[in-house]
Amino acid sequence: MLSALDLARELEAGTLTPDALFDRIEAAIAEREDTIRAFACRDLAAARAAARTATGPLRALPLAVKDNIDTGDLVTEYGSPIHAGHRPAVDAAIVALARRLGAVIPGKTVTTEFAFFHPGPTRNPHDLEHTPGGSSSGSAAGVAAGFFPLALGTQTGGSVVRPAAFCGVAGFKPSYGRLPMVGVKIFSWSLDTLGLFAATVRDAAFAAGALAGRDWRVDGELSATPTLGILRHQPGAQADEQMQAALQTAIRCAEACGARLVELTLPEVFADAFRAHTTIQDYEATRALAAERDMAADQFSDHLRQTLDEGWALTAADYDAAQTTAADARRACQDLFSGIDALLLPSAPGAAPRGLGSTGSSEFNRIWTLMGVPAVNVPGLYNGAGLPLGVQVLGPRNGDKAALAAAAWLEACLGSGRI
Amino acid sequence: MLSALDLARELEAGTLTPDALFDRIEAAIAEREDTIRAFACRDLAAARAAARTATGPLRALPLAVKDNIDTGDLVTEYGSPIHAGHRPAVDAAIVALARRLGAVIPGKTVTTEFAFFHPGPTRNPHDLEHTPGGSSSGSAAGVAAGFFPLALGTQTGGSVVRPAAFCGVAGFKPSYGRLPMVGVKIFSWSLDTLGLFAATVRDAAFAAGALAGRDWRVDGELSATPTLGILRHQPGAQADEQMQAALQTAIRCAEACGARLVELTLPEVFADAFRAHTTIQDYEATRALAAERDMAADQFSDHLRQTLDEGWALTAADYDAAQTTAADARRACQDLFSGIDALLLPSAPGAAPRGLGSTGSSEFNRIWTLMGVPAVNVPGLYNGAGLPLGVQVLGPRNGDKAALAAAAWLEACLGSGRI
Repeated sequence: MLSALDLARELEAGTLTPDALFDRIEAAIAEREDTIRAFACRDLAAARAAARTATGPLRALPLAVKDNIDTGDLVTEYGSPIHAGHRPAVDAAIVALARRLGAVIPGKTVTTEFAFFHPGPTRNPHDLEHTPGGSSSGSAAGVAAGFFPLALGTQTGGSVVRPAAFCGVAGFKPSYGRLPMVGVKIFSWSLDTLGLFAATVRDAAFAAGALAGRDWRVDGELSATPTLGILRHQPGAQADEQMQAALQTAIRCAEACGARLVELTLPEVFADAFRAHTTIQDYEATRALAAERDMAADQFSDHLRQTLDEGWALTAADYDAAQTTAADARRACQDLFSGIDALLLPSAPGAAPRGLGSTGSSEFNRIWTLMGVPAVNVPGLYNGAGLPLGVQVLGPRNGDKAALAAAAWLEACLGSGRI
Repeated sequence: MLSALDLARELEAGTLTPDALFDRIEAAIAEREDTIRAFACRDLAAARAAARTATGPLRALPLAVKDNIDTGDLVTEYGSPIHAGHRPAVDAAIVALARRLGAVIPGKTVTTEFAFFHPGPTRNPHDLEHTPGGSSSGSAAGVAAGFFPLALGTQTGGSVVRPAAFCGVAGFKPSYGRLPMVGVKIFSWSLDTLGLFAATVRDAAFAAGALAGRDWRVDGELSATPTLGILRHQPGAQADEQMQAALQTAIRCAEACGARLVELTLPEVFADAFRAHTTIQDYEATRALAAERDMAADQFSDHLRQTLDEGWALTAADYDAAQTTAADARRACQDLFSGIDALLLPSAPGAAPRGLGSTGSSEFNRIWTLMGVPAVNVPGLYNGAGLPLGVQVLGPRNGDKAALAAAAWLEACLGSGRI
């Protein structure tokens, strides 16, 4: 994998030129893209040319863009045949801001259909017979395969944290509202959140902080040893044996590195919140995609069509009740973080499932997306077959730096070999 | 003006055909559109054809769409030369929902540049030398001129309530988040809100409720006599003598009709909230329009370019402080409505100013858009020169029906001639 921070330092020092960087990523892409299929489309020549003259904190760093995010110079199909060949008028805000910071866009990455569940062709670089996760399938797989150091994704359920976990890369979903959604194809406006993929947590924090215009960097001194809340159970979610073992390893390792640990249980309202996520998502999605539904519902996957039908059957009262539950749970969530720096729990039920027909389950992610809290997948653990097992670190709402600092601390701790 | 409710009843009864309705509006447009300039573009033939086969609660009702809202079949330029000739891939969600309900789209209405301040060519039907207000200039003027019974607008500062007041029509900005913003060109995502223009409050409530899928109709029995909070002063806003007299008339009239009145003053935090609105708006707008700013800032008006430059100079800390102030003020705003049904205050500093170089001031609207509360312009009062003077009725957040009921009650009361 390519570390964005390392590349930035080498580019700054002049020990790496943009052309040499592009030679390296083009070689990786030439070798493996035919099987991995991370890209929906790409224009490496344009990105290389842009990199030569780029300036700014992200200068010349390739940032791939999930294909549910508009680009003015690259076809943007939202993972749906309905939008085949679509060329947006202008870049999404986040893409324009990235270019302003010096980043260059090598291409668009495969998203599931409208960033929901129906998978694209992307495979997991750790084992081609396994899903890379979704919906940000190509962004996670491409970072894992060394095609680019950085990639944008979005999360409505678990679409950043889960594929990051399955592909063994860092994935960071900031607090709701921290990165501008203008020009992102909306599925559920109360939930959709932009996120970043990178080789390590520190790389993700570096790039996300630059994009947000916030001091989120955690690549200096390691932060003070954190107090971590451990969450072994949450409603609707069941970790398999491998994941339970991975969480236990992370806990023992954190303890060995000096972390204070507090076992926590979730209050009852989170069980309601788990259900509220689906209600809010489906009610909003059927409206967000109303034009496509009326125009070309026959081009939807069965799963999406059925979800939008169910969403249309929900009443305003159903939706209002779900939003009230979400607000109650957000208050309870604030209390949850009193006395701890961050929460530690599985990123997914286990390693990436075998097969490409499904992108796996977001059951460990949905509640936290609804809570709007920052979530970081920490890579570094693997099962016996060499497939990554991700654990996630959560911070309080708008405590993005605290979450990133704790995640970077844990990442270093897992990498230290101490158990 | 055309009452949507009356037209719906006549269409239902068969005493009016869609073609006869279109004959009527085409005659009005032929007579006055050359001078009023409400439309950015139009296709009356397509709308007429759609009306013939339309079904649903809004069947065959012409609903004009502000040109910052995407339409798949009509050019959408966002009031900016940067997007000249732009044709969106699909309808905005609100447009698709409107068509699903049977409404037909006669055309797009003039918006100021990106729904900010720089005016388009629209004139006020009550006096062609006066502004119709903005940013939803064409929607308000077109309803006033009888070109269509319904029109969509958006409000970030005062872009629905103010033009409705200046043009003497009902304007309804629902609570923040009640109508889906997908496919609306975003200026400030924390503030932008869709709204409706119609001949009367009852017409606006009828159409807005259908679009929201909520029971907002207030055209049955008049609601119980309301308790109204009277707000004579608010930070940053100054009513002229005509408007002070109009508010006094509305108060006396409401009293004569039996309303209970409570004089209220705003707590201190609203002065900070007034300033916070500008900070939030400018910080977000410079990001929302980042692509346009980098690509074609020379095609911005001076006012917009300067606003986006100022927005870019704001820090994340400035923005966070403004959002904290807004949250504090929203809590205070909830208390404000305890013991009253609705608030009554001016919609604007006075009647529509003379001249087309400015669309007037949103000083009476910005705080309430930031609070996310429903706001209704109630028409019915005029100055000596025959220009409308609007007063607005506000309800608590998500108390849209209460606000509409009080506004409809006041509208009936003003129409009763009792003082």
